[in-house]
Amino acid sequence: MRGRAKRWAGRFTKATARAVEEFTASLPFDWRLLRYDVLGSIAHARMLAQLGVLTESEAQAIIAGLREAEAELAAAPKDFPHELEDIHTLVEARLEEKIGPLAGKLHTARSRNDQVALDMRLYVRDKTCQTVAGLVGLQETLLGLAQRYREAILPGYTHLQRAQPVLLAHHLMAYFEMFQRDVERLQDAFRRADVCPLGSGAVAGVPYALDREAVARELGFASVTRNSIDAVSDRDFVIEFLSAASLGMAHLSRMAEEVVLWSSAEFGFLGLDDAYATGSSIMPQKKNPDVAELVRAKTGRVYGHLFALLTVLKGLPLAYNRDLQEDKEGLFDAADTWLNCLEVTSELLATASFRADRMRQAAEGDYATATDLADYLVRKGVPFRQAHRNVGELVAWCTDQNKAFSDLDLEEYRRFSPQFDEDVRAITAETAVASRAVLGGTAPSRVG
Amino acid sequence: MRGRAKRWAGRFTKATARAVEEFTASLPFDWRLLRYDVLGSIAHARMLAQLGVLTESEAQAIIAGLREAEAELAAAPKDFPHELEDIHTLVEARLEEKIGPLAGKLHTARSRNDQVALDMRLYVRDKTCQTVAGLVGLQETLLGLAQRYREAILPGYTHLQRAQPVLLAHHLMAYFEMFQRDVERLQDAFRRADVCPLGSGAVAGVPYALDREAVARELGFASVTRNSIDAVSDRDFVIEFLSAASLGMAHLSRMAEEVVLWSSAEFGFLGLDDAYATGSSIMPQKKNPDVAELVRAKTGRVYGHLFALLTVLKGLPLAYNRDLQEDKEGLFDAADTWLNCLEVTSELLATASFRADRMRQAAEGDYATATDLADYLVRKGVPFRQAHRNVGELVAWCTDQNKAFSDLDLEEYRRFSPQFDEDVRAITAETAVASRAVLGGTAPSRVG
Amino acid sequence: MRGRAKRWAGRFTKATARAVEEFTASLPFDWRLLRYDVLGSIAHARMLAQLGVLTESEAQAIIAGLREAEAELAAAPKDFPHELEDIHTLVEARLEEKIGPLAGKLHTARSRNDQVALDMRLYVRDKTCQTVAGLVGLQETLLGLAQRYREAILPGYTHLQRAQPVLLAHHLMAYFEMFQRDVERLQDAFRRADVCPLGSGAVAGVPYALDREAVARELGFASVTRNSIDAVSDRDFVIEFLSAASLGMAHLSRMAEEVVLWSSAEFGFLGLDDAYATGSSIMPQKKNPDVAELVRAKTGRVYGHLFALLTVLKGLPLAYNRDLQEDKEGLFDAADTWLNCLEVTSELLATASFRADRMRQAAEGDYATATDLADYLVRKGVPFRQAHRNVGELVAWCTDQNKAFSDLDLEEYRRFSPQFDEDVRAITAETAVASRAVLGGTAPSRVG
Amino acid sequence: MRGRAKRWAGRFTKATARAVEEFTASLPFDWRLLRYDVLGSIAHARMLAQLGVLTESEAQAIIAGLREAEAELAAAPKDFPHELEDIHTLVEARLEEKIGPLAGKLHTARSRNDQVALDMRLYVRDKTCQTVAGLVGLQETLLGLAQRYREAILPGYTHLQRAQPVLLAHHLMAYFEMFQRDVERLQDAFRRADVCPLGSGAVAGVPYALDREAVARELGFASVTRNSIDAVSDRDFVIEFLSAASLGMAHLSRMAEEVVLWSSAEFGFLGLDDAYATGSSIMPQKKNPDVAELVRAKTGRVYGHLFALLTVLKGLPLAYNRDLQEDKEGLFDAADTWLNCLEVTSELLATASFRADRMRQAAEGDYATATDLADYLVRKGVPFRQAHRNVGELVAWCTDQNKAFSDLDLEEYRRFSPQFDEDVRAITAETAVASRAVLGGTAPSRVG
Repeated sequence: MRGRAKRWAGRFTKATARAVEEFTASLPFDWRLLRYDVLGSIAHARMLAQLGVLTESEAQAIIAGLREAEAELAAAPKDFPHELEDIHTLVEARLEEKIGPLAGKLHTARSRNDQVALDMRLYVRDKTCQTVAGLVGLQETLLGLAQRYREAILPGYTHLQRAQPVLLAHHLMAYFEMFQRDVERLQDAFRRADVCPLGSGAVAGVPYALDREAVARELGFASVTRNSIDAVSDRDFVIEFLSAASLGMAHLSRMAEEVVLWSSAEFGFLGLDDAYATGSSIMPQKKNPDVAELVRAKTGRVYGHLFALLTVLKGLPLAYNRDLQEDKEGLFDAADTWLNCLEVTSELLATASFRADRMRQAAEGDYATATDLADYLVRKGVPFRQAHRNVGELVAWCTDQNKAFSDLDLEEYRRFSPQFDEDVRAITAETAVASRAVLGGTAPSRVG
Repeated sequence: MRGRAKRWAGRFTKATARAVEEFTASLPFDWRLLRYDVLGSIAHARMLAQLGVLTESEAQAIIAGLREAEAELAAAPKDFPHELEDIHTLVEARLEEKIGPLAGKLHTARSRNDQVALDMRLYVRDKTCQTVAGLVGLQETLLGLAQRYREAILPGYTHLQRAQPVLLAHHLMAYFEMFQRDVERLQDAFRRADVCPLGSGAVAGVPYALDREAVARELGFASVTRNSIDAVSDRDFVIEFLSAASLGMAHLSRMAEEVVLWSSAEFGFLGLDDAYATGSSIMPQKKNPDVAELVRAKTGRVYGHLFALLTVLKGLPLAYNRDLQEDKEGLFDAADTWLNCLEVTSELLATASFRADRMRQAAEGDYATATDLADYLVRKGVPFRQAHRNVGELVAWCTDQNKAFSDLDLEEYRRFSPQFDEDVRAITAETAVASRAVLGGTAPSRVG
Repeated sequence: MRGRAKRWAGRFTKATARAVEEFTASLPFDWRLLRYDVLGSIAHARMLAQLGVLTESEAQAIIAGLREAEAELAAAPKDFPHELEDIHTLVEARLEEKIGPLAGKLHTARSRNDQVALDMRLYVRDKTCQTVAGLVGLQETLLGLAQRYREAILPGYTHLQRAQPVLLAHHLMAYFEMFQRDVERLQDAFRRADVCPLGSGAVAGVPYALDREAVARELGFASVTRNSIDAVSDRDFVIEFLSAASLGMAHLSRMAEEVVLWSSAEFGFLGLDDAYATGSSIMPQKKNPDVAELVRAKTGRVYGHLFALLTVLKGLPLAYNRDLQEDKEGLFDAADTWLNCLEVTSELLATASFRADRMRQAAEGDYATATDLADYLVRKGVPFRQAHRNVGELVAWCTDQNKAFSDLDLEEYRRFSPQFDEDVRAITAETAVASRAVLGGTAPSRVG
Repeated sequence: MRGRAKRWAGRFTKATARAVEEFTASLPFDWRLLRYDVLGSIAHARMLAQLGVLTESEAQAIIAGLREAEAELAAAPKDFPHELEDIHTLVEARLEEKIGPLAGKLHTARSRNDQVALDMRLYVRDKTCQTVAGLVGLQETLLGLAQRYREAILPGYTHLQRAQPVLLAHHLMAYFEMFQRDVERLQDAFRRADVCPLGSGAVAGVPYALDREAVARELGFASVTRNSIDAVSDRDFVIEFLSAASLGMAHLSRMAEEVVLWSSAEFGFLGLDDAYATGSSIMPQKKNPDVAELVRAKTGRVYGHLFALLTVLKGLPLAYNRDLQEDKEGLFDAADTWLNCLEVTSELLATASFRADRMRQAAEGDYATATDLADYLVRKGVPFRQAHRNVGELVAWCTDQNKAFSDLDLEEYRRFSPQFDEDVRAITAETAVASRAVLGGTAPSRVG
């Protein structure tokens, strides 16, 4: 493709400096919008035909040319000549090579300002759907694990201290809930992305009687933007995707942290599959949870992309400003990162072994049933504050003596409260779990 | 209120260090949850009565005590003794002073972990509603201005260069759209905040057959949380409010930037009311748009609060961790800031004078109707790219000669294209505006 | 103090709206600059006397009045009347009550723009020094612990997997290094804060022949600002403090994370003193590392403050804009937070018990000496890659058989390499540690 | 290059999953460290020869092989096979192809943990120097402009309102000061990057008597790290570069904002060279300051990179974790962005025309000399507060009458204060500027 004069050179007496071309070019990254740009152009061509700006055969020639151009460009290497500023110019230039000056008519009643807004909305719609699929895939993995390990009990932790026994299934389903909110959040955001801006022109609307709603329908949009100035300067839908991605990555980072913890020798709750762990070039014994570490760390870059775009928008006057070009790289990377992390996390979990024995051991260690002892005393008539104190003192004494509850005889129990009776020994992690049968509680009757 | 032993002192052999009490205390800020804490406790007391844990008269005594305690605490100065850790402890301590040990029964089937989650959700619900009201108020101001200045024309700007003439009403309504999205986003977020966590206990659910849905109904919640582990560690609804606030502040910052620009001597589009501007202690002529500057700047602190909480959540294992206490101050400040900025911006605009004469002058200066000249040539049969070039050269020549379009005679026009005819002089800012009558365009027929 | 007309009311025909006064007031937070404001005013008064603008006795009266005002205001409650905009106005108003109209002369050759820049620099200088002291205090605690536990060995971790045995002292001294960089970073930042802006006036400098260097000397500044426009709009020194604070908090968050991990039942390396831990109102056995959790979480708010101010500065034209008022609350909170976290972390560590026995056990568990086995083989002539593979296979087998290295007999070793000999059993955590005697390595000869 | 088994496969029974290889690979971006990696390996080989681990001829073979590998890899396309994890593995694999198993000996006494720390430090040192050069280049441009336009006067702005006349040179030199602080900040940060980590091994140091200081000297480092655990987990020097970059970009964004404002029709202070501006494909008259807009916007991405890495470090336990791999892409992009923005801003300014006539006109419009009128009255004995009020009322009246100061006759002046005399008319922008001759003030005697 040969260099050509800029499409706006009329009032300029000098060529653009090479450094400026390189500095301002978006083609090195916005080629990813190729598909959407062509899709939008085809719909625009059809509408121009309906409007009578193009004849039917002109429209057909343009559409065929666009499809060819797309196929070629999709297959080509991505280092394009620097003087082609962006994907819109590239497609138009390629189209012109194919069908000659007729290509120029496609730009009627359209500006790059509404065109890029369209492309970005099509991209966000697509990525939203893909991400929802990724979330649902991970949820299915969790459901499978909850089913597979339905009897496993581990300590529920607060402050990373063993708190109360819970079902592993209950613990895993806590993440299911988080991902469910991620899905719903994306669905809500989708509605605000799913609005067609075409017809807004550069800023003021176009002086043509476009049937904007028809174009929107063809492109599958639910509605059209209602104000042209807003339409060309609005990137809310990008921010909203990035906000959802940030929170989604926060969820993944929490799960990744637990994978790292549970894979440690100290916890020992989780054995990673050899295919999902890595070793050390120095230390022969190492089996590292690199995947989980990277998922955890990649949270940072997604947060960073959100803040980058929030910074761009801060104090930006209406309407389109070139600043908005900075909306792309961060979005692309955030969408890729989130989706990759969802997929790799799902595989990591699906292939890992959960060590129910280690979990079970921990669930009764460190006095995780202490609340149940206190509740036992309450049922025997001791006021809760008093029962709490008695059991607290019992725990202190056991710690000192290095004893577990199961090591105690009744006499030892009774040193701390005369209400203790033989049946106290029936309190186990299982009974503790079963007793919490309230809606949302950890009892098998609820989780199952 | 006198100091008292910690409610959890059983296994401890030493009092908490003063420095720790001060470092960990949340009461200096969570007293703002007083109303919500009492509301939740009243609903909890009623439910305990239904459950038979409290007699009806015990419940009545507790509820009466809570109402008294709330009234007194709301009126009291806010420097509470440091050994009272949080609002929950403060209310319980005050209740105990009133009704004695019966107060302790209120803590049955509840932990501070689900209690604070409830309080936060009630707070976010309230603030969401107030903020929606604030947004609608500002939208009404914009509608009023659009009506008042319905004929005013100014240049639509892109790249802060005059681009095409637009109606001031159209420009103002662009902000209306942004605020409308803010409203919808808050409504979506509301649904995810509007879920009752009570009954989740410390982490595993409570060993009581609570009717969680009844409590939820009494507190006006649409539903209940489905997983106790998630319920005590979920702060998504706070993040989601902060995300909405960040984007909402970005919108306000854009408007504030325009107020600053338009109030400058150079633009001169806007005269602030003396009551909404400030002066300089040194420079007698100054009339400064401080309010707009502060709105613009306060965007930073709201972004900061969002980032702070995202940082807190990153890599946090399940379930409740004390880290979550850091969810409050940023949220409170963000909610206050957003609401204040909405209100003060609304007043600032309502009291300002828009200078239609200065705007009109700018709308025809600097060749803002050049696109219309090109469209004129297109209608005379010139291909768009050619017409664009001709007008571009005309503009370059005019700039050189320091002439406006209105200064040109027909001969001068024709130097650049023979298609120019007398009727080119009929092109004005008004005709330019009127011609963009597409849906979403700036024509009075659309905006009106 | 009664209300009074604004000091800049000349060209205004209306009083400021109450909502504007409240929205723009900085007094609710900038009263913390009281000390610095008075300090600066005293130096300014002395300079005005030298300049002949004030007589010596006028200067004395002003200085005495300022000192009185400071003492009274420092003792007074901090809810000041809303119509007093800021600390500068408050001090001047109070001075005027004391010494009458003479107070007005103090404002000669000074604007609030250079005055607030001065106050902020004095504040940052002070806080920098206090924070350095806090860092050094924590370093001393670490040195004390390194000395106390000089023989303790624990696994060095990479990827939270046991990697190689290290001295606890070596591990603790890693943090010493981080805090040392924090100290140096603050010292570097101090030099850029330590520059006196007084004399820059509102923006252009003042039309008086001030001896700026004399004032700077009196206030202990190393130099004076060289450009008045920059001087009133520069907040680099605040950003630089916030950057240092963010990194400093990142260091503390890493240490806090380790305190949380090490206090868990699973690690069991650390026992917190009862006075530095907290319990649960529900679970009698809990002893929670709340202090460490909060230190970890407060990192978020400091990051948030940095981002907030960076956002404020983005795209702000010269020179002073009211936006800069937003530099204060975040700075004050970041400085307080950092210092508090340093102090409380130091106490937390100093009072905790490190469990050398648990550490020692972990240091040989999970094959942490595997690298040393490989190095052993290398010394026997096996190429490193081969030795690494042999030991890797040995570890896999041991894991399978649930054996530790110390459980193996020579025959078992030799299954994996014939080069193993009796002396392989001499490899222990101690020999592993001792062998890494390179500069910076973990050997006692280096760390000691 | 053919695929090969992982260098750590001993204890693993399964190959790494393809998805994991792709997810964890750093080669797609860390190939940019090639130069530094080879540099470090050469120094390491020399040291191993001194130590006797390599013979002199082995060392020579390795060094020659490394140089060849570097040259080939630098010239090759950058899509490497996915199973090569990182630049270190790539270089070693290529070296092995050249010199056979001898290549393996290079890994003696080194781990990828200290190796990557070294590479990153070498990269940061280089980029720091290049950025300082970029800053100095921009400062030179500013000096040139200050000299070229040494007599130009414009209004100094506060709150974007005309405040007091200043020299354009003074205004430009305010930026000079900012960039000077950027230079100094980088120099300070350099000292903390300029420390050699080689010899720290995986975490505990290496069991070889390396002469770490000799290696450091060879690589031009000023010193060596003192603690191996810290050395492999420290990324402070990256954060510090990113912090400096964020503040540096904030400075550029302020200047870019002024370029955008000054290029607007409303200000008209600046005419961009055609080679440094861009046009519109729709609007023929447009000449847009895209370069400045993009510089302003790119501030966001640099802030984002800083926050991304701060997020990564938050709560990360010692020592090396795979999370640290996320330090690279953001750093590389931030360094490129900052440098590009410096260079393109310098060219943009050097080629632009500053319109001294428009500036001069503005400098006396809108009563920018009002402070000088007040100072005039003070010199005639009027107290400052009174003078301020008089001039404020004069301004209000002039605004009302639509008069400039220069339109007034003496009688009109005297309506507002009898102290006004004929000589008031000698007050001009020039005299205003000249009067502010204090150190740092705007007078030609100071700026020149």
